Amino acid sequence: MSLATLDSTQHPNLPAASQTLFHAKARQRLSFEKIAQHIGRNEVATAAIFYGQAKASAEDIHKLADLLMIDYSQLEMQLNGFPDRGKSVEMPPKEPLIYRLYEIVQNYGYAYKAILNEKFGDGIMSAISFSTSVEKETDAEGNNWAVITLRGKWLPFSRF
Amino acid sequence: MSLATLDSTQHPNLPAASQTLFHAKARQRLSFEKIAQHIGRNEVATAAIFYGQAKASAEDIHKLADLLMIDYSQLEMQLNGFPDRGKSVEMPPKEPLIYRLYEIVQNYGYAYKAILNEKFGDGIMSAISFSTSVEKETDAEGNNWAVITLRGKWLPFSRF
Amino acid sequence: MSLATLDSTQHPNLPAASQTLFHAKARQRLSFEKIAQHIGRNEVATAAIFYGQAKASAEDIHKLADLLMIDYSQLEMQLNGFPDRGKSVEMPPKEPLIYRLYEIVQNYGYAYKAILNEKFGDGIMSAISFSTSVEKETDAEGNNWAVITLRGKWLPFSRF
Amino acid sequence: MSLATLDSTQHPNLPAASQTLFHAKARQRLSFEKIAQHIGRNEVATAAIFYGQAKASAEDIHKLADLLMIDYSQLEMQLNGFPDRGKSVEMPPKEPLIYRLYEIVQNYGYAYKAILNEKFGDGIMSAISFSTSVEKETDAEGNNWAVITLRGKWLPFSRF
Amino acid sequence: MSLATLDSTQHPNLPAASQTLFHAKARQRLSFEKIAQHIGRNEVATAAIFYGQAKASAEDIHKLADLLMIDYSQLEMQLNGFPDRGKSVEMPPKEPLIYRLYEIVQNYGYAYKAILNEKFGDGIMSAISFSTSVEKETDAEGNNWAVITLRGKWLPFSRF
Amino acid sequence: MSLATLDSTQHPNLPAASQTLFHAKARQRLSFEKIAQHIGRNEVATAAIFYGQAKASAEDIHKLADLLMIDYSQLEMQLNGFPDRGKSVEMPPKEPLIYRLYEIVQNYGYAYKAILNEKFGDGIMSAISFSTSVEKETDAEGNNWAVITLRGKWLPFSRF
Amino acid sequence: MSLATLDSTQHPNLPAASQTLFHAKARQRLSFEKIAQHIGRNEVATAAIFYGQAKASAEDIHKLADLLMIDYSQLEMQLNGFPDRGKSVEMPPKEPLIYRLYEIVQNYGYAYKAILNEKFGDGIMSAISFSTSVEKETDAEGNNWAVITLRGKWLPFSRF
Amino acid sequence: MSLATLDSTQHPNLPAASQTLFHAKARQRLSFEKIAQHIGRNEVATAAIFYGQAKASAEDIHKLADLLMIDYSQLEMQLNGFPDRGKSVEMPPKEPLIYRLYEIVQNYGYAYKAILNEKFGDGIMSAISFSTSVEKETDAEGNNWAVITLRGKWLPFSRF
Amino acid sequence: MSLATLDSTQHPNLPAASQTLFHAKARQRLSFEKIAQHIGRNEVATAAIFYGQAKASAEDIHKLADLLMIDYSQLEMQLNGFPDRGKSVEMPPKEPLIYRLYEIVQNYGYAYKAILNEKFGDGIMSAISFSTSVEKETDAEGNNWAVITLRGKWLPFSRF
Amino acid sequence: MSLATLDSTQHPNLPAASQTLFHAKARQRLSFEKIAQHIGRNEVATAAIFYGQAKASAEDIHKLADLLMIDYSQLEMQLNGFPDRGKSVEMPPKEPLIYRLYEIVQNYGYAYKAILNEKFGDGIMSAISFSTSVEKETDAEGNNWAVITLRGKWLPFSRF
Repeated sequence: MSLATLDSTQHPNLPAASQTLFHAKARQRLSFEKIAQHIGRNEVATAAIFYGQAKASAEDIHKLADLLMIDYSQLEMQLNGFPDRGKSVEMPPKEPLIYRLYEIVQNYGYAYKAILNEKFGDGIMSAISFSTSVEKETDAEGNNWAVITLRGKWLPFSRF
Repeated sequence: MSLATLDSTQHPNLPAASQTLFHAKARQRLSFEKIAQHIGRNEVATAAIFYGQAKASAEDIHKLADLLMIDYSQLEMQLNGFPDRGKSVEMPPKEPLIYRLYEIVQNYGYAYKAILNEKFGDGIMSAISFSTSVEKETDAEGNNWAVITLRGKWLPFSRF
Repeated sequence: MSLATLDSTQHPNLPAASQTLFHAKARQRLSFEKIAQHIGRNEVATAAIFYGQAKASAEDIHKLADLLMIDYSQLEMQLNGFPDRGKSVEMPPKEPLIYRLYEIVQNYGYAYKAILNEKFGDGIMSAISFSTSVEKETDAEGNNWAVITLRGKWLPFSRF
Repeated sequence: MSLATLDSTQHPNLPAASQTLFHAKARQRLSFEKIAQHIGRNEVATAAIFYGQAKASAEDIHKLADLLMIDYSQLEMQLNGFPDRGKSVEMPPKEPLIYRLYEIVQNYGYAYKAILNEKFGDGIMSAISFSTSVEKETDAEGNNWAVITLRGKWLPFSRF
Repeated sequence: MSLATLDSTQHPNLPAASQTLFHAKARQRLSFEKIAQHIGRNEVATAAIFYGQAKASAEDIHKLADLLMIDYSQLEMQLNGFPDRGKSVEMPPKEPLIYRLYEIVQNYGYAYKAILNEKFGDGIMSAISFSTSVEKETDAEGNNWAVITLRGKWLPFSRF
Repeated sequence: MSLATLDSTQHPNLPAASQTLFHAKARQRLSFEKIAQHIGRNEVATAAIFYGQAKASAEDIHKLADLLMIDYSQLEMQLNGFPDRGKSVEMPPKEPLIYRLYEIVQNYGYAYKAILNEKFGDGIMSAISFSTSVEKETDAEGNNWAVITLRGKWLPFSRF
Repeated sequence: MSLATLDSTQHPNLPAASQTLFHAKARQRLSFEKIAQHIGRNEVATAAIFYGQAKASAEDIHKLADLLMIDYSQLEMQLNGFPDRGKSVEMPPKEPLIYRLYEIVQNYGYAYKAILNEKFGDGIMSAISFSTSVEKETDAEGNNWAVITLRGKWLPFSRF
Repeated sequence: MSLATLDSTQHPNLPAASQTLFHAKARQRLSFEKIAQHIGRNEVATAAIFYGQAKASAEDIHKLADLLMIDYSQLEMQLNGFPDRGKSVEMPPKEPLIYRLYEIVQNYGYAYKAILNEKFGDGIMSAISFSTSVEKETDAEGNNWAVITLRGKWLPFSRF
Repeated sequence: MSLATLDSTQHPNLPAASQTLFHAKARQRLSFEKIAQHIGRNEVATAAIFYGQAKASAEDIHKLADLLMIDYSQLEMQLNGFPDRGKSVEMPPKEPLIYRLYEIVQNYGYAYKAILNEKFGDGIMSAISFSTSVEKETDAEGNNWAVITLRGKWLPFSRF
Repeated sequence: MSLATLDSTQHPNLPAASQTLFHAKARQRLSFEKIAQHIGRNEVATAAIFYGQAKASAEDIHKLADLLMIDYSQLEMQLNGFPDRGKSVEMPPKEPLIYRLYEIVQNYGYAYKAILNEKFGDGIMSAISFSTSVEKETDAEGNNWAVITLRGKWLPFSRF
């Protein structure tokens, strides 16, 4: 089985922690599933930490350092600030897998808005008070299906 | 309760059918939930037809014409071609609700890719062999949560 | 005193309500201050309704129709959907007054982030659960100062 | 508590002083609140100096060198020119916190213009003869609110 | 079976002939396959004439006028100039089907260049001295495959 | 005969494997035709591996290491992740050969869509469940023609 | 002598007043020099009013209506709001004359900044508290030279 | 007094000479006014040489090397080619001071064109056969004003 | 033989004169060669007048009105202002013929600069004090060649 | 006389050969005229080789290595691949000399198309089967004129 890796010449603007973490992950030959189990977080959140898109708690850093055999103080120094999000994906995405998600927004954006507005009123689904997960399903004919769930708090526009 | 409407001066490039359908929907004061039940399709797919982003079958057109009291032949003429998708949302989206979905792709794009690649191998989640739905949840404290599910067939890259 | 007006050839993508409202405002020679007092909302929120950027409640529509002498059912039809926000300002803004606000974000964006993160932790200031207001101050030498206040709920990133 | 840090691989175009200052801040484990108190300036202005967006006076440089234990002449050499502003935030901002501020300009830009024009006449709120501050409020239910104040001199367009 | 149609509000910049031709095609309920057979040209070339991307000869115009029952002189006047190509597709394409072709160029562009250079030397495959066709294949399991062939003259860079 | 090479100052964002492979290819003076024969894959796919746009199987890596005399473990480490596609070609392409392919999409995009929709219904030609090849033809007058074949599975839009 | 005119198909987003004013100017065959003398303002400011880039005072409107024989109340209605500046020139400018001005900013921008900073300190030259004029000079050999003067108040960045 | 300096991490694409010159200028603590006097050129032109936007004559190079105590042959080698102009300012400019100049072009571009055309006929003001200067004025109330003069040869469009 | 025509739905931003002129040209079935001979100007300049990119003199307007049988005063009114150049071609050009010219600039731009600088010194070839022409050549094998000549005055950068 | 040189910090994406060649050219103090004579090619083509925009034959490489005293095998290795064209000029060009050429395409693009179409029919002037040259002319008053000739094969669009 192949593992997700990071080629830093392709991602020159990711934080220093990304290289540290991916390097150790490759060395330890660990999947995100394993790492997520170890730190007790969702796989997507775990990968997001690796890409500098989610904050690791002090405890997360300890567990990551342990599992991945990274010097704790180096990892702590690289991860203890606040994530500077949004620098990993260039938009519109050129990567085919990520483009498909972008295309879903492009095609169904107003349909989602219409349905959400009629169900909840005037507001948005938060992308901050938010969680997401990925599941694998296999149907009767042996086809695999990816299921991504997005769950965000509904925030009504304030009246002022 | 407010209903989703269409202001065509804001959407000059939607197909002619969009105006016909939204106009009738406003006149009949119908929600997408009602319309979706009537035609037996998912709410998001139903709204996507209204925005010119999904194809209506001959039967869908009949049911829509009936429910919305639109002249059948006019609707048929406007809907019987193939959708020319992608013209409804300007990217990056300026609409706050749609931007949040875009931001999810921007922030978690590579995390999704890493998790999907490790679970399925080299490929993509299809946005064509694909369905999506929206649910409303209310938690113990009375907060509302929007849950969007994306379900796409896994397509491995062909070896050639 | 001059009043803010709308020249629709300059804003072809604003909703139909914008023209109705601004036309009536010009005819009645009313300032936003007056209109805001009448409907009991903040001036910025009131102007935002005129530009299609905020939702008017049923009661707001009644009061606006009254004050501005607009046919109620026409206004209700134009305003009872959900705002399709973000179409009024072209970004980067070419309008000098609006550009100055954009420039403040461009120059102080990371400074705000650093201060907010240190004060509140990892999260964002909501632009939805949000209000804003404008005040005029005059100093001892007779100079006028504009004071804009932005007040948004702090949303911490969910841990998942 | 976490402190704001700088990962220079994510910000390759900030001035050399940014790295010097953030490096020392991390080493001394100082918040911007502490640093601002020490140099007697607003927190946002202090962070802006760190990001190369505001000028430090000779006295500021002395105090910063003292508090952060940086060699004075090195810091003086890096900070004694004139800030080359605008290179810290890529527009449109990809960072979610900064994007929210951008979205406020995008959504309320013309509303601010209309209100300011009616209150002050034809002109702009200066972003130069300008100050800004950030406050934290906690409401009765324990929710935190961020309050950002923008205060700029009103500049009328010259008649010529 | 559905036929390809044109919704001119979605394509405001196509030539006047596009509307004339598509309108007549819909009225006569003719597929491009039928039209192509009638005028003796490739289906893609035929559709390209409809979208203003290929030149119709005098004889083509006669045959199209006949088959589609369009007034000859009107069609001649609309088609006798030279095509002003490139205005039909907005790049990057938002239409999912067209995006897939764009993605093939994005992903395999340099691979094509390397192979073509090694086979032919320094030059390009002409897109002018060029033809293309579309075939449908069905494999043993009943899956359909689209096969697009691009055939262009090899043009070596002149030595000068 | 000249061989395709890689000048990494012109392609700073290709993966590390690209440099390893092209460097070895130049040293061994091998064409892609030879390399493709050796690994038993199509030439375009082979070149795509070199540009980081296709995945090499474990067996491919062994064969490439053998033929190109690269240290196996180094190559394996560089190639065993998942390709991060789309970073090789800047769009719109500035390279004349690649631009011609882009222009074909720009000019014939809607013609392809119309023909494919009429032949297959509402859907897309997959760029994932996909293969492509390049052939050289010489006509009676000695002119060379490049023939590129694109073959993708037809994916109908799911009804939901 | 030719006069500057307005072709509104080339400028669809200028305010309605632009058409009224330019139409009358053409009818009366008046140069901006004449109009400027009549209203007692600078020629550039006068032309800026015509393009919707400067505010006309009540007195200006009276004088313009008189000289250009426009119905006063129509002109007053079109001009009494606040200019929505920045919509006349598309940036980068395609017009050669305007491009040359843009190029001066592009080439000498940092030189101006360096000189101004050394002369005035940290700040900007205001474009609001600002006037500009155009002169014609003819040198000894009969060559004509255009001289544009930009005069703006120096605004130092506030210390806060 | 502060001097203009160059932080090369903020300007990675300026020519090598820029670093040499600014480094020496900082070491010698010289203003552009002093340097301009020494080489007998305008201050803006002098700063333009430092930013790689103007050509230094052989004599200029000698004088610069003398005054700034730079090795002559190094400076000569860096400056004896032809300037590759336009790489110093990113457009639209993010720097507030430079943006104000850009905004002047954006707002008054067509007003300048109209006035210049009426005064000179069909043509442009040259940005090549061109000089510019900066002056400081102080008015009766002690306010400082920056005056920038642009003087370019008038070039009529050739008739052909 | 086909003649160049104008489809105004494809060129919504050309001046009104473009439609008048092209309409008359089509009605009179005249080539640009004929029209150019009649008015005594170069063919490219003549076509440029039709596209609003060159100024017609009073005499040109008379001759055009005569030959094309257009009402003189209408044509005079549409053509007597100053051309607002640059609105005909969208850049980068999507039209294949025009793209080839763009590509020549993209590929040979710096080569032209190097040769011109070595031949003439520091300056530019004027595009204003400029003429251009198109010739057709046929070689021994019967191949046609287009020859475009660009002739511009050399403008040295002023020393100041 | 000054010679064209290359400052590689301004051109980070040119091929390695560019630096080798320009460095040697500066060391040998040779003009492109001299180098072109030596290798028997046109000056523009010669400069294009230096900028990585044209292919050098084996014989060209020998002659260049001789004249410029470069180690043959190093130059051969750097030049024996296929040019990856289009990376030298950023579009739209910021360099004033190159911008003028771009402007000619922008202003006269459709005029060229109209004239070429009427002279040759539906097709393009090839930029591949193409040569170009630069001449210097001096008129009676001593003014210098640059003459650029573009000569490309006419390629008619294939009928298919």
